[in-house]
Amino acid sequence: MEKRSYVMYACPETESNIYYATGFMAPDPFLLIVRNGVRYMVMSDLEIDRAKKQSKVEEVISLSKTAAEIDKNSMPPIEVIIEHLLKKFRMKSFEVPATFPSLIYSHLISKGFKITIVPDPFFSERAYKRQDEIKHIAHSQKITEEAMAKVAYILKESNIRGKRIYFDGTCVTSEYLKKVINIFLMEKNMVGAHTIVACGNDAVDPHNEGAGPIRPNESIIVDIFPRSMETLYFGDMTRTFVVGKPSEALLRLYDAVLTAQNKALSMIKDGVLLADVHKAVQNVFEQLGYKTGLIKGRMQGFFHSTGHGLGLDIHEPFRIANVPGYLRTGMVQSVEPGLYYYGIGGVRIEDLIVVQKNGLINLNRFPKSIFP
Amino acid sequence: MEKRSYVMYACPETESNIYYATGFMAPDPFLLIVRNGVRYMVMSDLEIDRAKKQSKVEEVISLSKTAAEIDKNSMPPIEVIIEHLLKKFRMKSFEVPATFPSLIYSHLISKGFKITIVPDPFFSERAYKRQDEIKHIAHSQKITEEAMAKVAYILKESNIRGKRIYFDGTCVTSEYLKKVINIFLMEKNMVGAHTIVACGNDAVDPHNEGAGPIRPNESIIVDIFPRSMETLYFGDMTRTFVVGKPSEALLRLYDAVLTAQNKALSMIKDGVLLADVHKAVQNVFEQLGYKTGLIKGRMQGFFHSTGHGLGLDIHEPFRIANVPGYLRTGMVQSVEPGLYYYGIGGVRIEDLIVVQKNGLINLNRFPKSIFP
Repeated sequence: MEKRSYVMYACPETESNIYYATGFMAPDPFLLIVRNGVRYMVMSDLEIDRAKKQSKVEEVISLSKTAAEIDKNSMPPIEVIIEHLLKKFRMKSFEVPATFPSLIYSHLISKGFKITIVPDPFFSERAYKRQDEIKHIAHSQKITEEAMAKVAYILKESNIRGKRIYFDGTCVTSEYLKKVINIFLMEKNMVGAHTIVACGNDAVDPHNEGAGPIRPNESIIVDIFPRSMETLYFGDMTRTFVVGKPSEALLRLYDAVLTAQNKALSMIKDGVLLADVHKAVQNVFEQLGYKTGLIKGRMQGFFHSTGHGLGLDIHEPFRIANVPGYLRTGMVQSVEPGLYYYGIGGVRIEDLIVVQKNGLINLNRFPKSIFP
Repeated sequence: MEKRSYVMYACPETESNIYYATGFMAPDPFLLIVRNGVRYMVMSDLEIDRAKKQSKVEEVISLSKTAAEIDKNSMPPIEVIIEHLLKKFRMKSFEVPATFPSLIYSHLISKGFKITIVPDPFFSERAYKRQDEIKHIAHSQKITEEAMAKVAYILKESNIRGKRIYFDGTCVTSEYLKKVINIFLMEKNMVGAHTIVACGNDAVDPHNEGAGPIRPNESIIVDIFPRSMETLYFGDMTRTFVVGKPSEALLRLYDAVLTAQNKALSMIKDGVLLADVHKAVQNVFEQLGYKTGLIKGRMQGFFHSTGHGLGLDIHEPFRIANVPGYLRTGMVQSVEPGLYYYGIGGVRIEDLIVVQKNGLINLNRFPKSIFP
């Protein structure tokens, strides 16, 4: 069988496909040319020796030497360098990912190359995690749970005074809890950016990171999704807590989300339609009377996917939503239904799971209770 | 004057241009259509309310409503949604950035749209920092210097025992120092990823992050480049230290790099050619007898740029290198010559500066001495 021929020009820090293909992390874009499965990385003088040591490609080529073959005096634009190498390699047709820069694409098209743009996912195999990848994600998730435990402990040990809560004499704020989480993660070599600790109405915007004092009797969504600096794999989990006494409406909301999550978890196994899981979650909410849509000018109810793939990226294919496709053995997915109503609050509960032939492995052990 | 019309589809986390244009941070790509300077952001149900609150665009459009105008039952691909909106807006010609995804580009071209791909920088004004941006970078750099001071203190107070150094009874390693740096940064709401603490021959690869015990009498390159989670602007600085007694060759290397950096700093002002500054650094090294090139099969000497722009990205235009272009008032640049020789070690000294009409403002105060 003919192996794939493709070209990528991207920064592995932000485009995981090129990291997946090369095993090389760098802060700048670099060029990867693959001819019949043989990988050529084209590296600057700055990175070339590290690339030879750290990457897993078949050959590392010098960018400066290649440039000198074209122009001895100044560095040609990257599209000209790529054109030169493709001609040298006699590659007339090849694939590129959907995100391939259009500047380079249009140059190569104008020079007569035949380019097939592959829609996401470029590497369909990335969705099916290898055992070593699952181990990395499980480790990231374990640390994420430890960070969650720190938050739960602080909330549990906090005292209510008026409209504030206090831990060890300090007024507990979103900022304080995020710092506790992120510093703990950094101690474990994980980067937690955009960690969410959002209280009350703040949490009705699911990506509001939260600010200001934590208020008693209101829901607190804690969503932690750090990346390991060692393995580069993410963890991702959410719990919702209340310090004090939740309203009856909030308790019902919590139960509805937990019921929906359990419904989704019970359905997941190899061969199930993504859309069926999502619709089941929507049905739970509808049957319990929770409407979704624009209410008083803002989105309320359940208005995000039930889950997403995760690995080297925090959001990978496939989404558990009203989209085509199936859950397949080896996929790592978040399962995170949520309900959000202004005046009641937000509730989201999120686990990471690995799809199995007849069910799933849940990478979470952390209890699910509104009381920390 | 006609204002710009352009289209972007990118994730602000990884593509600063769309953050620069909208002021909105999100973990997923979104669509921005600008017609004669009026910005339309197209947001999912998940993000739309937060986008209305947090972005600075003229209008936020619902992605799901737009999709329903095309197909009531399922979400069309993003390129079809863009085509639909461009027709609705009667936009036949517009600009896109060099990194615009080729999948979308080729679809729109096939539908007859006239697209101008703008080479970097898409926003030339990004190179000239506003006062508020300079304030943010200066703050990031101040915190970066505080992190550097933590390292210098530990190194200064460490004791040599054999081939190791000890602080408070603990063997000092690259990993330990990186953790000290990164935890301190996180306490200050900054993310330090890929922080470099590389000792001896490790440091000869300038992007080797370093590992293992810090050895006495060898050079230790400490390169810290964190991003503020509040302002999203980076800091970036490097110092090189030795615990114990550096070799004569290493002392000379340090002096050469410091001389070259001072030479570069003395030249920087509005109107100076980027290449002239870089060549001056190369000349200092050549005159002192330091050769650059492949030595024993690896790059040694001075084989990276003298500096780079910095702001919302760690590496922004323009590089101080053998490239066309000028330093201009308001540019924030790193100035970081280095020398790297296997067997002697690596030395790099890096400050951040703001170019001024008749000179520069150096955002660093931290001393430059090989002895911490």
